[in-house]
Amino acid sequence: MRDAYHEELDSISDDLVAMARQVGSAIGRATTSMLDADLKLAESVIAADADVDTVQHELEARAIALLAQQQPVATDLRIVVTSLRMSADLERAGDLAQHVAKLARLRYPDSAVPQDLQATLLEMGQLAQRLMAKAAEVIITKDIDLAMQLEKDDDEMDMLHRTLFQHLMDDRWQHGIETAVDVTLLGRYYERFADHAVSVAKRVVYLVTGEHADELQTDAG
Amino acid sequence: MRDAYHEELDSISDDLVAMARQVGSAIGRATTSMLDADLKLAESVIAADADVDTVQHELEARAIALLAQQQPVATDLRIVVTSLRMSADLERAGDLAQHVAKLARLRYPDSAVPQDLQATLLEMGQLAQRLMAKAAEVIITKDIDLAMQLEKDDDEMDMLHRTLFQHLMDDRWQHGIETAVDVTLLGRYYERFADHAVSVAKRVVYLVTGEHADELQTDAG
Repeated sequence: MRDAYHEELDSISDDLVAMARQVGSAIGRATTSMLDADLKLAESVIAADADVDTVQHELEARAIALLAQQQPVATDLRIVVTSLRMSADLERAGDLAQHVAKLARLRYPDSAVPQDLQATLLEMGQLAQRLMAKAAEVIITKDIDLAMQLEKDDDEMDMLHRTLFQHLMDDRWQHGIETAVDVTLLGRYYERFADHAVSVAKRVVYLVTGEHADELQTDAG
Repeated sequence: MRDAYHEELDSISDDLVAMARQVGSAIGRATTSMLDADLKLAESVIAADADVDTVQHELEARAIALLAQQQPVATDLRIVVTSLRMSADLERAGDLAQHVAKLARLRYPDSAVPQDLQATLLEMGQLAQRLMAKAAEVIITKDIDLAMQLEKDDDEMDMLHRTLFQHLMDDRWQHGIETAVDVTLLGRYYERFADHAVSVAKRVVYLVTGEHADELQTDAG
């Protein structure tokens, strides 16, 4: 049996995993709502973000109570402080999923995304969801190799982002300015979402190795 | 004379003020570099972001050492944890100033911004700089009324952002897609920069009153 103190640390970790799963699901559903112009699905993603915020507040209250009552030092202190940062990353990733859903709602009954870009944005959405699923797994397993994989996945996201920009900058672009603006913002949302997933993985590497994962450094752009 | 412990708390606060001043200056200079297509100035903003990151790392190391060695409780614990969050806001605001400067560099020797939008973007840049200057002052003075002012300033930023979008969506837009994409991203950078300044002020309100400044709540979009 673990003592109450370590049980409390574990439940902070459980909260992080729960948040990662919530926002991973949110970005997947937000992408679908955008591609299918599904208003009901978009609304449900927008509403569900409040649940992510609730878990974050619980986690923070728990972390601060633990700091005050148990006064952890060394590794345990690092775990608690890093958990606060991870929860901020995850909360922000949830906001970005919500932004995608809000754009879907804004353009309903149209899709925000023209036909010839749907495949690229579907890939970005799926990749974002996979990145977050891996981040959740990294929190659970503390698997450094898996954490390193997220960097490679993020390179793929950058490539997809460049593909999107090539479409935008192509002289044959015929979808007008409004759609160009929408696609620019969507690209940024997915890129930032991926950055937050990578950041969560990097923080786990830091916890395990005590060193900042500079090799996992992304442009936090 | 204050004891070593409270001196350490004060120096964390000094670091936060230093960071706020650095990023306030950075957004001002980045805006100028973009409007004037001043490559040298853009390069200097991009290079200076490393200094912000250095102060942040020092602040974090200091905060964690203080948690480990002094094991603060109650208000002091809240100050330290909140300082970590404020430094994350300020670091991110610094990144956004850097993004503006990078766009200036990318479009050099042209300006990223067409003539008819320069006034709006100058206003956004100046407002962003003022917001960050006020955030610094809020950290120093813990003036709740001043903190509340930031919310009003942020409404002004939202209005400028809408003006920018009206230009983009105007049928008479004649600057092409690339410029539309640039202006969309710039608008987002300034809006997010302002959000981080407001967030810093809100956290001070929380420290002083013990209550989350929901009336200062912004869309952390």
